[in-house]
Amino acid sequence: MSTTPQLHVVILAAGKGTRMRSAKPKVLQSLGGKTMLARVLDAATSIRPASLNVVVGFGADQIVAATDRADIRWVLQNEQLGTGHAVRCALDEVDFADDDHVLILYGDVPLLDAAVVQGLVDAARRSPLAVLTTELSDPSGYGRIIRDAAHALIAIREQKDATPLEQAITEINTGLMCVRVGELRQWLTRLEPKNAQGELYLTDIVGMAHAAEVAIEGVFTDDPVKVAGVNDRWALAELEREWQRRQAKSLALAGATIIDPARLDIRGELSIGTDVTIDVNVIFEGRVTIGNGVTIGPNSIIRNATLADGVQVLAFSHVDGAELAEGVVIGPYARLRPGTFLDAHSRIGNFVEVKASRIGAGSKVNHLSYVGDTEMGQECNIGAGTITCNYDGANKHKTLIGDRVFVGSASQLVAPVAVGSGATIGAGSTITKNVPEEQLALARAPQVLKTGWQRPVKKKPA
Amino acid sequence: MSTTPQLHVVILAAGKGTRMRSAKPKVLQSLGGKTMLARVLDAATSIRPASLNVVVGFGADQIVAATDRADIRWVLQNEQLGTGHAVRCALDEVDFADDDHVLILYGDVPLLDAAVVQGLVDAARRSPLAVLTTELSDPSGYGRIIRDAAHALIAIREQKDATPLEQAITEINTGLMCVRVGELRQWLTRLEPKNAQGELYLTDIVGMAHAAEVAIEGVFTDDPVKVAGVNDRWALAELEREWQRRQAKSLALAGATIIDPARLDIRGELSIGTDVTIDVNVIFEGRVTIGNGVTIGPNSIIRNATLADGVQVLAFSHVDGAELAEGVVIGPYARLRPGTFLDAHSRIGNFVEVKASRIGAGSKVNHLSYVGDTEMGQECNIGAGTITCNYDGANKHKTLIGDRVFVGSASQLVAPVAVGSGATIGAGSTITKNVPEEQLALARAPQVLKTGWQRPVKKKPA
Amino acid sequence: MSTTPQLHVVILAAGKGTRMRSAKPKVLQSLGGKTMLARVLDAATSIRPASLNVVVGFGADQIVAATDRADIRWVLQNEQLGTGHAVRCALDEVDFADDDHVLILYGDVPLLDAAVVQGLVDAARRSPLAVLTTELSDPSGYGRIIRDAAHALIAIREQKDATPLEQAITEINTGLMCVRVGELRQWLTRLEPKNAQGELYLTDIVGMAHAAEVAIEGVFTDDPVKVAGVNDRWALAELEREWQRRQAKSLALAGATIIDPARLDIRGELSIGTDVTIDVNVIFEGRVTIGNGVTIGPNSIIRNATLADGVQVLAFSHVDGAELAEGVVIGPYARLRPGTFLDAHSRIGNFVEVKASRIGAGSKVNHLSYVGDTEMGQECNIGAGTITCNYDGANKHKTLIGDRVFVGSASQLVAPVAVGSGATIGAGSTITKNVPEEQLALARAPQVLKTGWQRPVKKKPA
Repeated sequence: MSTTPQLHVVILAAGKGTRMRSAKPKVLQSLGGKTMLARVLDAATSIRPASLNVVVGFGADQIVAATDRADIRWVLQNEQLGTGHAVRCALDEVDFADDDHVLILYGDVPLLDAAVVQGLVDAARRSPLAVLTTELSDPSGYGRIIRDAAHALIAIREQKDATPLEQAITEINTGLMCVRVGELRQWLTRLEPKNAQGELYLTDIVGMAHAAEVAIEGVFTDDPVKVAGVNDRWALAELEREWQRRQAKSLALAGATIIDPARLDIRGELSIGTDVTIDVNVIFEGRVTIGNGVTIGPNSIIRNATLADGVQVLAFSHVDGAELAEGVVIGPYARLRPGTFLDAHSRIGNFVEVKASRIGAGSKVNHLSYVGDTEMGQECNIGAGTITCNYDGANKHKTLIGDRVFVGSASQLVAPVAVGSGATIGAGSTITKNVPEEQLALARAPQVLKTGWQRPVKKKPA
Repeated sequence: MSTTPQLHVVILAAGKGTRMRSAKPKVLQSLGGKTMLARVLDAATSIRPASLNVVVGFGADQIVAATDRADIRWVLQNEQLGTGHAVRCALDEVDFADDDHVLILYGDVPLLDAAVVQGLVDAARRSPLAVLTTELSDPSGYGRIIRDAAHALIAIREQKDATPLEQAITEINTGLMCVRVGELRQWLTRLEPKNAQGELYLTDIVGMAHAAEVAIEGVFTDDPVKVAGVNDRWALAELEREWQRRQAKSLALAGATIIDPARLDIRGELSIGTDVTIDVNVIFEGRVTIGNGVTIGPNSIIRNATLADGVQVLAFSHVDGAELAEGVVIGPYARLRPGTFLDAHSRIGNFVEVKASRIGAGSKVNHLSYVGDTEMGQECNIGAGTITCNYDGANKHKTLIGDRVFVGSASQLVAPVAVGSGATIGAGSTITKNVPEEQLALARAPQVLKTGWQRPVKKKPA
Repeated sequence: MSTTPQLHVVILAAGKGTRMRSAKPKVLQSLGGKTMLARVLDAATSIRPASLNVVVGFGADQIVAATDRADIRWVLQNEQLGTGHAVRCALDEVDFADDDHVLILYGDVPLLDAAVVQGLVDAARRSPLAVLTTELSDPSGYGRIIRDAAHALIAIREQKDATPLEQAITEINTGLMCVRVGELRQWLTRLEPKNAQGELYLTDIVGMAHAAEVAIEGVFTDDPVKVAGVNDRWALAELEREWQRRQAKSLALAGATIIDPARLDIRGELSIGTDVTIDVNVIFEGRVTIGNGVTIGPNSIIRNATLADGVQVLAFSHVDGAELAEGVVIGPYARLRPGTFLDAHSRIGNFVEVKASRIGAGSKVNHLSYVGDTEMGQECNIGAGTITCNYDGANKHKTLIGDRVFVGSASQLVAPVAVGSGATIGAGSTITKNVPEEQLALARAPQVLKTGWQRPVKKKPA
């Protein structure tokens, strides 16, 4: 009985990554707002493998807890005895067929993409062993790829064994490979810890394949960034910047005006319309959707938000979990918190915080205000220093404001409270009872003069 | 009858710039806060041409509307049939004399400067055809400049026609040229659309000149940035950064301390005194004048403003349309809007917005306040949370504050209202009537205790 | 009678630094938040010299006033007649023994470190003259180091005297040297102003040493940044960035996650725990101590502060002179001023300013508030827009708040005032008298409706 050969993925994620100097396992370090492991899982998923096996060891519990996916088979490598040992652990636990292939990826090689993975998998159809190679301007320390005159890969020479001529070779082994299970099992059994670390090195199977006269497929990628591993946080920082630079470039080529590509951070999914301008030092996080003709001012932070056509975000704004309809203008120094909906052409100004509220079309909250748990109609004008008192120390309450309401400056609306359409609140009022439509409500002490009053005098220090 | 030969400028600005992926014509994209076309017009104007002709096509109406100059003759190129055709359109409409010269510039070559243009114009005195060349480390795709042993320009070889030896030449044709009208008319007539795009290429006239044994002047500029064209927004972003870097460098050499040249944006005209310090991530826009010993804190934005000697702008400040007298200190998080005048040694603090107001010498508005449409005298102290209620929902009114006024925290001044010199406003007062000089005014409800009152209890969710 | 030879340091700091275009002497320009001279003094102090002599001239008074150290012997060089003259001034004033050595440093070579200085001093044990050399990719303008086949330094060839072959040498003289006093006195006497500037050049003593067949020690450092001199503010800016990049790198390798090394400024001493994350565009100033697991959000400024484990600083925060206990969360847009102590798990939110106050464990001041000169207990909730009125125009007063106090929004606490534990303040109240424990205090005008009131109508312009 024979079945169609299948493709399995094994991701090595058991190492501590000592040089990261972290209490977290290395693969949980983030790049572009996502853990390195999550990035590798995304790349692996793109080829729809028959199974997805992740070998964990150091911090295994943390890794499993941080990974919210049901389709992973976790393999525990109790002792970190090398990459060869890690793959062995995976094969020991699982009943792969000899005809199946195993694609071996690394949890600390985060910028792998679907195309590179697919190229390696395709090559594996032609040989029991396909290895991914790239070119480095400084290849020292890496295994060099030795090819014959017909460009066929005939060996991988480790640094210590390389002749000076071989050391000049700049094509190197990335460590990523795709191997037929039958051969892989045999080779893994024969691995020996003949090295300073006393570990089993997976790459040693390439020599075995060569000795066995297997025609090894060497798949070359010209972009070393996609197969770069991360060993310390300086490397992580450098890779983060390269990743951000690439995102900025693709956004610019898609038609965004990016004032400074070196000062843009996209940590999630950003989709933009035409003629979007992004000023310096902007951060996008999570899922952000931006319409046509939108301007994002300098130093703004936009997280999990939808900005319709013509929205203007002025400098120093902080948007999180909000939806902004067409033509809305916010900032500078506007803060929108989750649950905020700003209807068309409404306006949120400086030092204003809005939370879990709906602001009607054309309404304005321009200065130093706090609006929380509020439903506001259209064309309202909320004066400077207005505060919705939505919390009584125990529960949150709602404030309802109709259309065309004018709230005088420095008023407080003590929720639950409703202000009818067309109503006016006098400046400095504490509104605790509902205000009918079209009425003026005041809560204001009479102004008095204290005669004969003397200003305090500066006390001398004792 | 003969007249003095004249110099005309023709700027080609008709292309759509498809790779910009914009609804705007390419030449209206901005660099350093000014459209590319405006920059080219500035360079062209520097040589005082007899006429300034701009060939427009795609988005012609937008371009004309965006260009506020009376000295331009707009030439419409209805179909985009190539640069040769564009220049033909210009010559068809205008009656240049045969002895005149035409300087041909491009609306998407924005960093051209007066010196480079002048060099080209000067060379045109010696030949009917002067072309501007530069050197690129990667010249592929550009027409190579072929010179003879005497360094005379003898041909421009297009990429596709170049021998390997010619391809190694790094001096290239920029496309900018200055041509005598008589020859130009003849050559333009003979242009043919023998290329993949079926367009008439202006550069083909160089070959005709060479065939006619005209001694072509090749004017070399060693700075390719000044003649770089912009085809997509990545190129625009890169040129923006180079432009900003150059501005930062010239500012530093002129004596400004610039903490990070890579985080400085100057989008307009900035003039500075001695010993000015500009911290990281600062943006200048419009016309900004800065005196001696001024410090601009990190993340500040300064637009259309005048800052006198010794002014300190602390972090996160936003200044627009304001004048700050000697020794003023603002910020952090201060926002000054148009029409603000801060007299000597006055102080605007955090989360304070000032608009269309005059703050007297030595006066302080230090915390969380809104001051609008206000005339304030000297040595006042405005408490935290003070708000001038300048808008009644229909009209703006003025607040007048004398000298040495003390406004207690969280007071509101409901305009129109006047507070006399030396007056004091008690904290938390809503002031609706004028306050006489030296008096204490209060509008405050008496403090009461509610006995037997119970705090609200957190409700269980239903 | 003989004594142990001693090591003296002479720092040359008399030049104006014309190209800095500053009213300040060059050595008072800052790099990384510290004057260049202070940096050189630190490096000099590291070798514990017998005496520390600083030669000053231009702006001598400013330099002395700006340098707060008692261990410096100031030497006045009245006329700036060159480096040789400057050293002569120092030796004229002081009675160094012939067997002593003098280490000559420069006030405008700021990134010198202890290891490089030590290397030079060590070499001086082997020769009356040790000079520090380095390698530059572009050595033009510098004196080239001529060595013989045994790598011994035999001459320093100035640019103007160098043959083409010598000009190709990239090892150059840094000007730093360590010289035995006996020889130094002789050589200095023989210096002549045979140059365009008419100055006495210290480097000429190397030729004299060579002529006298002294075996000169050439001490090589492979890091030209450490011996780079600053002549204008562009060079200063470039060195500032390199310094910051190195600090970022060493922080990353020590285990900090640094999102963008090019957008981090450390101007002082920063010590961090494990798993600290520093987002983009952060500035540290003065002495900052950060515990484990701390997150510093983007665009934050942290000065002279202590942040305990688990503290989160959200975006746009400004911390100066504050101590934050475990688990505190501040921001975005939080401003902490000197004298602030935030106890464990307390929370300061947006547009809140805290000054000289103690906030108890678990207490929250989340929105648009000013808290100054306040002692607050645990688990308080301070509503939006609360203001402590701590200043009566002449003196500052204290506000005392117990535990579990609930202050309703937009209240004012007019100090001196005390609010007992468990008390509640109604929203919008101006509290001028003490509030007993567990009581509800209100100061609020009754809400009234004005019937028949008409909204203002927009006036037509006259």
